[in-house]
Amino acid sequence: MIIDCHGHYTTEPKDLHRFRKEQVAAIKENKALPTKASLKISDDEIRESLEAAQLKFQRERGTDLTIFSPRASGMGHHVGNESVSMEWSQICNDLIHRVVKLYPENFVGVCQLPQSPGVPPKNSARELERCVNELGFIGCNLNPDPSGGSFNSPPLSDKWWYPFYEKMVELDVPAMIHVSGSCNPAQHTTGTYYINADTMAFMQLMMSDLFKDFPTLKLIIPHGGGAVPFHWGRYRGLALNNNRPPLDELMKNNIYFDTCVYHLPGIELLTKVVPIDNILFASEMVGAVKGLDPQTGQYFDDTKRYVDQVAWLSAEDKRKIFEGNTRKAFNRLKIKAPAKV
Amino acid sequence: MIIDCHGHYTTEPKDLHRFRKEQVAAIKENKALPTKASLKISDDEIRESLEAAQLKFQRERGTDLTIFSPRASGMGHHVGNESVSMEWSQICNDLIHRVVKLYPENFVGVCQLPQSPGVPPKNSARELERCVNELGFIGCNLNPDPSGGSFNSPPLSDKWWYPFYEKMVELDVPAMIHVSGSCNPAQHTTGTYYINADTMAFMQLMMSDLFKDFPTLKLIIPHGGGAVPFHWGRYRGLALNNNRPPLDELMKNNIYFDTCVYHLPGIELLTKVVPIDNILFASEMVGAVKGLDPQTGQYFDDTKRYVDQVAWLSAEDKRKIFEGNTRKAFNRLKIKAPAKV
Repeated sequence: MIIDCHGHYTTEPKDLHRFRKEQVAAIKENKALPTKASLKISDDEIRESLEAAQLKFQRERGTDLTIFSPRASGMGHHVGNESVSMEWSQICNDLIHRVVKLYPENFVGVCQLPQSPGVPPKNSARELERCVNELGFIGCNLNPDPSGGSFNSPPLSDKWWYPFYEKMVELDVPAMIHVSGSCNPAQHTTGTYYINADTMAFMQLMMSDLFKDFPTLKLIIPHGGGAVPFHWGRYRGLALNNNRPPLDELMKNNIYFDTCVYHLPGIELLTKVVPIDNILFASEMVGAVKGLDPQTGQYFDDTKRYVDQVAWLSAEDKRKIFEGNTRKAFNRLKIKAPAKV
Repeated sequence: MIIDCHGHYTTEPKDLHRFRKEQVAAIKENKALPTKASLKISDDEIRESLEAAQLKFQRERGTDLTIFSPRASGMGHHVGNESVSMEWSQICNDLIHRVVKLYPENFVGVCQLPQSPGVPPKNSARELERCVNELGFIGCNLNPDPSGGSFNSPPLSDKWWYPFYEKMVELDVPAMIHVSGSCNPAQHTTGTYYINADTMAFMQLMMSDLFKDFPTLKLIIPHGGGAVPFHWGRYRGLALNNNRPPLDELMKNNIYFDTCVYHLPGIELLTKVVPIDNILFASEMVGAVKGLDPQTGQYFDDTKRYVDQVAWLSAEDKRKIFEGNTRKAFNRLKIKAPAKV
């Protein structure tokens, strides 16, 4: 079984965009917000939006199941206030729930959180609980920088985040650490901001004893762990210089990187330096980088092809990357999509 | 000849630290600033500070010349105001000048700039001019984020920076894009902030026509180009998606990455994907990561060893990385250290 742990609903029906546009405009102009009831999205529209995109790619690339969440750049936690963020998150999460109900074999849900700048993360616990207990979701996307590009939140190791981690541990779900769209002109959303947030997250975790306090907490750093594998020697050295444990020990049962790295040499480096047990297959499709790579004639984000090509990965290594490790990180997968024996 | 294009004076005599400590404290407490005249650093102290460190490593590793600048994390552009930054920069640059005078065969100078948050970069042109024309320096370190961790400056492609680029072009010197110490607890200086600034710089340049306006402007992105080589496919794809030229064309005579990547697999990836003509040898010694790598028994920052080990690099490739490309980027090297025939 091949599980893609990082897919976003980036082909949403157009009425969702209409709603969000009106919501954002209403905030700017201090007018009445559009109502949730105004949203008109039919099951057929949802089917159409997926059949020609995510489902087509699943079939073509031979992947079975996508762990699916709302568009990351669309979370927009910096827009409006906490109640706006809550309404928008619930709408987006409910839409993911509809996707999963329509295609239970192809998708399993992960939620967006109603974060807002300066608002304690614990306020997101209720929506996480709703998504896990009522909608059957198996994880969440946690934004380490709800400001949209200033990196002015406390480090992920700060007690600020602890009440939310407590809820995650209680519900037995992991978080993917994922920022949203950048409102900072210095940081391009998919080219800079995403990658910088990943690198930042790793360093914050590396310098802390967070996992002593939460031994079963699981965090996924997407986009191959940002810059970390390329600078693996720097991080190994910094760990030593700061009396931190070796990186493989530090990551062991708590930190995972995904394979959203869009060329073979990158995936080769990732699988060469990062412990195989900490790598989760993912493509982020249909996501950050669209289209065909003229060098290969294949889609940039067809990351399965790269993993397949790595010469030194054994069949067992690949089984771990494609399925086994993801089952460890997302423990609730066993309910939604039991392993085939 | 082997030229290390990225070395900082990180072993400064202790009176420099005394001065800076007093300067920072005086700003905080709104007291009288220490005077420049109070600084007492003898030539012997300078010699001692280098003999057991940079010079020892040059000899041991077989490198000839280091392009040398003040400690990057010490620039502290966010501390105090423009006049504090000016005095501190001049002191640091004058000290580099003394180093170069004592060891003209081993070091050539690059300056720190008197940047300050919100202050137009053009105000740094005068100090650049002084360092180049009076002290014989061959380049500068340009901080893309004088705030110390908020990334709130305009992108490097913004007209905000143009008057400073005009001076660089006039003087025929390149800039290394290098932030200073982070005052943002979310961004660790050497583990996050440096690397994030590199990645940010590349994306800003990639999305702009800066080099159409300044065809001879040369910018060096240190630390191997941040996350860029690891995500080379992502950047190639984003360039295509945004109708930008291919990356090798975009970098051609304007953007260089250095080899401050502290493990062999990273250097292998760098030299596999980035055009050889755009890679400059550098070690950042004695810098970000100290000590021996237990996996190799060698210093993490002995990057020459990694370059030497890359199987597919020809003698000509290595000559370019170790000397030729650096001479192209730092055109004034030909005055300070003419190529040996």
